[in-house]
Amino acid sequence: MTPQTRVAPEEVRTVTCVGAGVIGGGWVAYFLARGYRVVAWDPAEDAESRLRHLVEAAWPALTDLGLAEGASLDRLSVEQDLAAACAQADFVQESAPEDLELKRKLLADIDAATPEHVVISSSTSGYGMTEMQVRCAHPERTVVGHPFNPPYLIPLVEVVGGEATSAEVVDWTADFFRHAGKSVIRMEREVPGFVANRLQEALWREALHMVEAGEATVEEIDLSITDGPGLRWALQGPMLTFHLAGGQGGMAHMLDHFGPSLLSPWTRLEAPELTPKLRDAVVDGCEREAAGRSIDELVAERDRGVIAILRALGRA
Amino acid sequence: MTPQTRVAPEEVRTVTCVGAGVIGGGWVAYFLARGYRVVAWDPAEDAESRLRHLVEAAWPALTDLGLAEGASLDRLSVEQDLAAACAQADFVQESAPEDLELKRKLLADIDAATPEHVVISSSTSGYGMTEMQVRCAHPERTVVGHPFNPPYLIPLVEVVGGEATSAEVVDWTADFFRHAGKSVIRMEREVPGFVANRLQEALWREALHMVEAGEATVEEIDLSITDGPGLRWALQGPMLTFHLAGGQGGMAHMLDHFGPSLLSPWTRLEAPELTPKLRDAVVDGCEREAAGRSIDELVAERDRGVIAILRALGRA
Repeated sequence: MTPQTRVAPEEVRTVTCVGAGVIGGGWVAYFLARGYRVVAWDPAEDAESRLRHLVEAAWPALTDLGLAEGASLDRLSVEQDLAAACAQADFVQESAPEDLELKRKLLADIDAATPEHVVISSSTSGYGMTEMQVRCAHPERTVVGHPFNPPYLIPLVEVVGGEATSAEVVDWTADFFRHAGKSVIRMEREVPGFVANRLQEALWREALHMVEAGEATVEEIDLSITDGPGLRWALQGPMLTFHLAGGQGGMAHMLDHFGPSLLSPWTRLEAPELTPKLRDAVVDGCEREAAGRSIDELVAERDRGVIAILRALGRA
Repeated sequence: MTPQTRVAPEEVRTVTCVGAGVIGGGWVAYFLARGYRVVAWDPAEDAESRLRHLVEAAWPALTDLGLAEGASLDRLSVEQDLAAACAQADFVQESAPEDLELKRKLLADIDAATPEHVVISSSTSGYGMTEMQVRCAHPERTVVGHPFNPPYLIPLVEVVGGEATSAEVVDWTADFFRHAGKSVIRMEREVPGFVANRLQEALWREALHMVEAGEATVEEIDLSITDGPGLRWALQGPMLTFHLAGGQGGMAHMLDHFGPSLLSPWTRLEAPELTPKLRDAVVDGCEREAAGRSIDELVAERDRGVIAILRALGRA
């Protein structure tokens, strides 16, 4: 397997989706809307009817958002045989239940049935590819492509290889997802939970602690996000949010001024020591992300964005 | 001070804003837009010009969103004397820098200058009212009313009293903010960081750890939120998000199926033990929040909302 024999990311025509539940079915809807031919396989008895129901339910929204040229529900075929489904693939996306033994066996079966130059990506949110690819004859073309629910609407895909994955495959996969319209984070190393789930999970665990301790109810926790920071996070992530919280001094002022509050028990999670190196990494990252936009410009962008979101949700 | 002598929440006409920086100035803009007369005081030399600049910058957006009857920039007056500002108040909102000694002294000064039946609220994000109200002669009418930046756009206000605050004052303050158009969480007890900041801070600390450990860059962290879970959080909080992640079984299925993953090192924050009591509290809370809406209905709401947000931000 070399880059020379692999189809270019923009030349993929047929995507095989293995597993057709909520995530796998969401992938099917997305790839169909982007104009791909999709071959699906799922061992459940009623899988095809559930899949067609899911895709048809998503289709009006996808049509409304704009289909790619040639996109059609007719380009979906459901195979009864895994090997037959994989044999047709230019790219495979696996979305089986989160069970390590099941994933190991399934990836080995996919690997055996898929042409050697075709990349095999897994939707796993819980495992690293290193531990999943162990039974594959060609582990170098297996990679994690972790989506967010629903995959047909949320842009993010986190791409990361395992120890046996070739760097070229990770690059190819990132390029493929970008070409297919996704927003890609190409991770350099395996981290449990990848990036977004680590952050989301820290918030979720703190929320569970608060319910456990009687500090807030489920409804208060959700309201505190939907009517508070959640209105900013579609626009500006946690880093840029705090860059603005620092006023004209930005993140540098924020860290220099509020750094000591990292010692406060504002969550059960202890903060790292705010070394000069960490401080500079965060400040420099915000400056790169701001890309020349002043605090005033970022504030104006945020305000326009929050108003647009409030309006869009009928809450203005 | 009794409920009999206090003006009703809906009869407040004049709000005194003590401190006119980013947060205090944001409150000034908000109260003006809601039709209140606002008296502002800030000790900084250029405070008035900065305040008028901030309010004028926010006004087009607030006008666009819809001003209350009688709302006008002309209803803002800036006093040079704190006592003169407080003497006019039907309600006081303090937004001084986060410095405990400063807040203690300032609240005592406000307390001394403000008619005894008037509620005094603090924007603090870092202190409990118990530790701030210690020098007030009438601590029973001091309360935390913690906003989110910018206060003129983000609806959330967290309301909580200190040990010496009367429960009636906490109720009154919650009613006042609701009448003024805010989304209120009335907390039963003081928790460092209140609700939203505890959750936000857990995420922020995990993000700092990731930068520190070289697991993700500042830009990747922000992208992972803005293009991932951040697109859902303006719509559905973390609890309802996972209620949907459980498929037709909802949160019950989610906890029963994915509960063991709470033991995984997906963040540096350890989860609480998922006792049957905690499990039921979370499941019951989601059911109350869903208020009869089926998973299918909630999914459809989420999809419409995500599409509306993507469109509103020009990202569809």
